Amino acid sequence: MIERIVIVGTGLIGSSIGLALRSVGFRGSIIGVDTSVAEATEAVRRSAVDRCVSSADAMQLCRESDLIVLAVPVLGIMDWLIRLAPVLMPQQLVTDAGSTKLAICDLARSAFNGEGQAAFLPGHPMAGKELGGASLADQALFANAMWLFTPLASETERMTEWRQWVARFGCRTLDLEPARHDRICAWVSHLPQMVSTAMAAMLADEFAQAPELADEFAAIGGRALREMTRLGASPYSMWRDVAMTNTEPLTATIFALEQRLNHLRDNLKTSELREEFAKANAFRLRQTT
Amino acid sequence: MIERIVIVGTGLIGSSIGLALRSVGFRGSIIGVDTSVAEATEAVRRSAVDRCVSSADAMQLCRESDLIVLAVPVLGIMDWLIRLAPVLMPQQLVTDAGSTKLAICDLARSAFNGEGQAAFLPGHPMAGKELGGASLADQALFANAMWLFTPLASETERMTEWRQWVARFGCRTLDLEPARHDRICAWVSHLPQMVSTAMAAMLADEFAQAPELADEFAAIGGRALREMTRLGASPYSMWRDVAMTNTEPLTATIFALEQRLNHLRDNLKTSELREEFAKANAFRLRQTT
Repeated sequence: MIERIVIVGTGLIGSSIGLALRSVGFRGSIIGVDTSVAEATEAVRRSAVDRCVSSADAMQLCRESDLIVLAVPVLGIMDWLIRLAPVLMPQQLVTDAGSTKLAICDLARSAFNGEGQAAFLPGHPMAGKELGGASLADQALFANAMWLFTPLASETERMTEWRQWVARFGCRTLDLEPARHDRICAWVSHLPQMVSTAMAAMLADEFAQAPELADEFAAIGGRALREMTRLGASPYSMWRDVAMTNTEPLTATIFALEQRLNHLRDNLKTSELREEFAKANAFRLRQTT
Repeated sequence: MIERIVIVGTGLIGSSIGLALRSVGFRGSIIGVDTSVAEATEAVRRSAVDRCVSSADAMQLCRESDLIVLAVPVLGIMDWLIRLAPVLMPQQLVTDAGSTKLAICDLARSAFNGEGQAAFLPGHPMAGKELGGASLADQALFANAMWLFTPLASETERMTEWRQWVARFGCRTLDLEPARHDRICAWVSHLPQMVSTAMAAMLADEFAQAPELADEFAAIGGRALREMTRLGASPYSMWRDVAMTNTEPLTATIFALEQRLNHLRDNLKTSELREEFAKANAFRLRQTT
């Protein structure tokens, strides 16, 4: 039975996991670890974790826990996996909430799930907000969301138990091979992020050249502009690691969109525009039915 | 006093104008004109208009009205302006809801607002939905939205009266010079539309090559993907006219985004990515405060 949980990273995702666990009846201990005193304090204030410890005290607590949830950016997850592997015991389970999975899985493959090694079940909740932080944590963040797993080994009882908690959060789940996970997420998550960032950064530069435009844009822009630039608020700290660890699929999808925009731009006055709208209409129809 | 209104085009915008007028107390007659029997019937059923007439009977009714609202795509608006100009009387007012304004205003400049000519006040409600049709019409569609005007002549009493009805819908309003209107709308409305269409069309092609992806994408894609492709459902019939009449500003904004994406793609692993996120963060902060 999972009774002692350590959540590393008590920002939006880590604190929401703590709150979700409590909301579905988890009665064991939840200890938070965060390098930011402000995030740690807020996570405790919100009751997302029972208490928070500094990184210095974290290793001992991890050794005494049943489950360690790594909810920091991807490169941070990889650092923690390297530090944890030599000190954990076989019955202990590590899981994570990293946005890319191939680099993490490649690193973990030899250090976990083997004889005498702790277990590791890589995970990725497809949920979030454009702004991070424990103050925005929400016990319902994962309700109806997809929680992806990229298992590296046959399932242990403790993995099954963690999957049951995730199911209680109201998540749908899907198992994927790590490289396939990263390619799909490049399309459905990482590309939308980069387009939103590019568009917001471009508009910021337009405003820098003509400050009087800023107020007019803000006044005139409606839902379309808000939606297309919403993710522009997302933190670099998280997305740097996505760009670093999913570079090739992300490069391919951005390039594909550049080509598509070029095609559309060349055909604003031709019947090709009709084709593009017909395909887009069909895509949306399929997504909504 | 405006007592007899003809709304040409009883789709989403035209029918929403009819419903909005009734909801804020307009007690005069509202006659609809639509080439589609289905749209006309639905507009009457929803009580957006008192009755609908075919295009053949429309000209006589227009001659007997105080206000004619043109709520069809831009090229259709231009056709109606050409037909209406010779038959209307000076006390009559025409307004429109077209998404681009320069082509419309250039056409109308010599045919309206002069000695012995009817008045024309070009307008553009920044409101809509990704799907059209009278069945989706909403009396609150314009609440808190921006209704832009690009006046061509000094204000008449009837123009003031129409502006008062628009204010009663709950709209904010702003007057712009037509070319400036079109350049700003290229950024805040037309570019988001084309990006959404391009992204949805691209994903449709991905699926055509690998149908098994479609279900996985639909299952995994979250809010980001939905938002970025929502406008992919928008009808070609309306956007063709925007592309035809705002080609140069739209070409410039699409090209600027292509370059921006190229820059971002080249810098996924450099500190330039931090700069792009910082600019995007600042843009969003400005938009939301």
